[in-house]
Amino acid sequence: MGTEKKFVEQITSQEKDFAKWYTDVCLKAELCIYSGTKGFVVLRPYGYALWENIMHGLDARFKEKGVTNVAMPMLIPESLLLKEKEHVEGFAPECAWVTHGGSEELEERLAVRPTSETVFCDYWRETVKSHRDLPQLLNQWCSVVRWEKETRPFLRTREFFWQEGHTLHATEEESLKFTIEMFNVYEKFIKDELAIPVLKGKKTEKEKFAGANATYTVESIMKDGKALQSATSHDFGDNFAKAFDIKYLDKNNELVYATETSWGFSTRIIGAIIMVHGDDRGLKLPPHIAPIQVRVMPIRMTDENNVKIAKELYEKLKDAGIRIDIDLSDKTPGYKFQECEMKGIPIRVEIGPRDIEKGVCVLARRDNGEKIEVRIDNIEKEVKDLLEKIQNDMYESAKVFLDSHIDKAVSKEELVEKMNTKKGFIKAMHCGCEECETALKEETGITSRCIPLEQEKLSDKCAICGKPAKYEVIWGKSY
Amino acid sequence: MGTEKKFVEQITSQEKDFAKWYTDVCLKAELCIYSGTKGFVVLRPYGYALWENIMHGLDARFKEKGVTNVAMPMLIPESLLLKEKEHVEGFAPECAWVTHGGSEELEERLAVRPTSETVFCDYWRETVKSHRDLPQLLNQWCSVVRWEKETRPFLRTREFFWQEGHTLHATEEESLKFTIEMFNVYEKFIKDELAIPVLKGKKTEKEKFAGANATYTVESIMKDGKALQSATSHDFGDNFAKAFDIKYLDKNNELVYATETSWGFSTRIIGAIIMVHGDDRGLKLPPHIAPIQVRVMPIRMTDENNVKIAKELYEKLKDAGIRIDIDLSDKTPGYKFQECEMKGIPIRVEIGPRDIEKGVCVLARRDNGEKIEVRIDNIEKEVKDLLEKIQNDMYESAKVFLDSHIDKAVSKEELVEKMNTKKGFIKAMHCGCEECETALKEETGITSRCIPLEQEKLSDKCAICGKPAKYEVIWGKSY
Repeated sequence: MGTEKKFVEQITSQEKDFAKWYTDVCLKAELCIYSGTKGFVVLRPYGYALWENIMHGLDARFKEKGVTNVAMPMLIPESLLLKEKEHVEGFAPECAWVTHGGSEELEERLAVRPTSETVFCDYWRETVKSHRDLPQLLNQWCSVVRWEKETRPFLRTREFFWQEGHTLHATEEESLKFTIEMFNVYEKFIKDELAIPVLKGKKTEKEKFAGANATYTVESIMKDGKALQSATSHDFGDNFAKAFDIKYLDKNNELVYATETSWGFSTRIIGAIIMVHGDDRGLKLPPHIAPIQVRVMPIRMTDENNVKIAKELYEKLKDAGIRIDIDLSDKTPGYKFQECEMKGIPIRVEIGPRDIEKGVCVLARRDNGEKIEVRIDNIEKEVKDLLEKIQNDMYESAKVFLDSHIDKAVSKEELVEKMNTKKGFIKAMHCGCEECETALKEETGITSRCIPLEQEKLSDKCAICGKPAKYEVIWGKSY
Repeated sequence: MGTEKKFVEQITSQEKDFAKWYTDVCLKAELCIYSGTKGFVVLRPYGYALWENIMHGLDARFKEKGVTNVAMPMLIPESLLLKEKEHVEGFAPECAWVTHGGSEELEERLAVRPTSETVFCDYWRETVKSHRDLPQLLNQWCSVVRWEKETRPFLRTREFFWQEGHTLHATEEESLKFTIEMFNVYEKFIKDELAIPVLKGKKTEKEKFAGANATYTVESIMKDGKALQSATSHDFGDNFAKAFDIKYLDKNNELVYATETSWGFSTRIIGAIIMVHGDDRGLKLPPHIAPIQVRVMPIRMTDENNVKIAKELYEKLKDAGIRIDIDLSDKTPGYKFQECEMKGIPIRVEIGPRDIEKGVCVLARRDNGEKIEVRIDNIEKEVKDLLEKIQNDMYESAKVFLDSHIDKAVSKEELVEKMNTKKGFIKAMHCGCEECETALKEETGITSRCIPLEQEKLSDKCAICGKPAKYEVIWGKSY
């Protein structure tokens, strides 16, 4: 069996080469594979099932907020993209352009959508007339294309999957309120379902989304100490409404501009799941979104009774609503264990002839390696409780890591030194000016992650340039 | 209120101009709207919710068959598309081509996928090695682009949404078996959930999919007598495997070619739902997939108790799992009724002060206009039973229409005359040669819809050219 070798070869360790470890896990856990289109990957069944679970969970939370899904055109005329000045500067340089339809050259080239603010605006200009038509709470699940030079699975690919929510409101208060509401939906989802602790804040002027008044961001930390922006929510005020002429008749029968938000969450989060939880044996998936929560393994495959009892166990747990499979292949036990670990399946149920005699089986936890003997007659409850415990323990363990990787600095030297030695997030005061932030980034690769919602006053002066400080900023090196 | 007028203007009647009626319904029921990208539409919340219900139902049926979802690249290198000769001839002329990424011209242009056989094959060549890796039962939900000259909402748009299933098997027997299995899944779904009766058969050589050995098709009939191909399932045998060099080690340790299928179902079906069930008042949606199954309307909006009881009714039905809303707007009752009819909501619940006194409410059926007085204390059961009854009655009514629009012909003259007067499907014998079929199409617009699975021998001779007949064919004029 040629495939046997695959798991015996160790993947690169995190310590040796974190980037290589990451790619090894993506490929060997069969989440994705490079495709024949340069910079594009294939999401394989296991990776897509993970994304499906994330989509279903998040979509339900959106619907609770009154959001409905729509589908906008995938191709956007260049003239439409050019309407909002800051936006086009942000996106036009990285668009893929369709210039021919069939054998004919198009009169106007079309961008494969890099994001869809412009098409939503175009739609609203046609359909929104009165305050009765507001708010418009829309979302789409789709893929977008951005012509990145360097690509890495999930983190940066030329095509990626996401949801982009776009909403239209009557006033600036309402759009800001909704921006923050969706920002909170993301934070809660990422914590509760993905077991990832986050820092919340606003982006600085330099880092905010092209065309936005304010960008709210959810930042998480990877095991190599680097930051990953996990979701963002943007308040546009009436910037786009003015560029696209979206006016409505208010209650006083006056024509006024509407206000707008957008908010997005992408397959990038799969990169975060890998790098927050994974270890040298591969993936570790939080039970809430694991495509397979439990895998049953009969220990003695040649023993008919062993296989029969294992199958009964599998059926019992399946009927209890657990996402489960059973490994009845002719691979060696060692290979089977390694594969189960590589795929990050939260619980492996081992059952052999001696267990059957005692009326027990063994639950092996992927997160901490613990093995627990439990009675078969109470297996549904045992497994359900343990899945919840694993979910919580994974969050707690990630939270300890995050908390131990937040530090403070009052000078540029301290900031740079701490970043180079300890990694993680460093809090430091900032003057708020773009130039000093840009200079730091160019010199050291350190970027502002966010202006945290809960502000701490570390000093009166900007740690970087020494001018009077405006607010506290969290700094980091990011993906 | 400017919007009041919208429903008071009658839509075009089916008799006057069926095509115009169709477009009016698409737009006025707010299923879709033309977008700023020529030939592309926006699926609005109501239209997308309908598609979501269809997706969820069909996806569950695929998963029962062991199919898993994946995501393949949206852009396909031209060289990959060119590998299978018949396939490229079928699709290359209608591709949208990406020639630039950012500011740079690409070395090789990329097609926005018109369909994904080629990328699935490329994936399998990389990942499938042994008989242990088979079968591969994959599917993706996505949109595809085909550069059509003339477009109509849902029926023919440059971008459309669909699922494309692609499977890889060990033998020709297995791929043929699976092709037929998925064909049966489509038929059952279309009958049970969309209340659309169908004819089943194989496509002729002329009409089959580019690169396939056999195409199985599910054909339905619209109220104007025209046919609509509702879903297709293709058996490729090893045609693509040979073009893409997809070989696996079989149980005898020999390298052999794999075999392949693909099967697709698109937003086109929304066109069928409109044209099979709709009438001059608008849409009629089958309860199983209606985004809103029931709308509650308090008759006297100024009567606080009336509104209160209506809200309680709404909550009660919502808790019972019915997809429901309540119209508390300040529009006139006439407008509200028309809007509810235009959107094809299966049941309208009317409740006024006099009903409340008697402990009853009125269920108004969209499908046949019937009004039924029922007791409020038994409302959940009454509504659920009526939804099932409406679903069945809509199917039966469509079945009567289909059955009364199938006729027979033994000569070309009879075929053409019957097609022009009665419309619908005409059965007639065929010699099986492509030339005679092409000539008929060019002369009369009549095309072969399928070679029905249940064959009837109407005569010994081809009705069109008089040569010896090979099989019975169902003919029609199609969308």
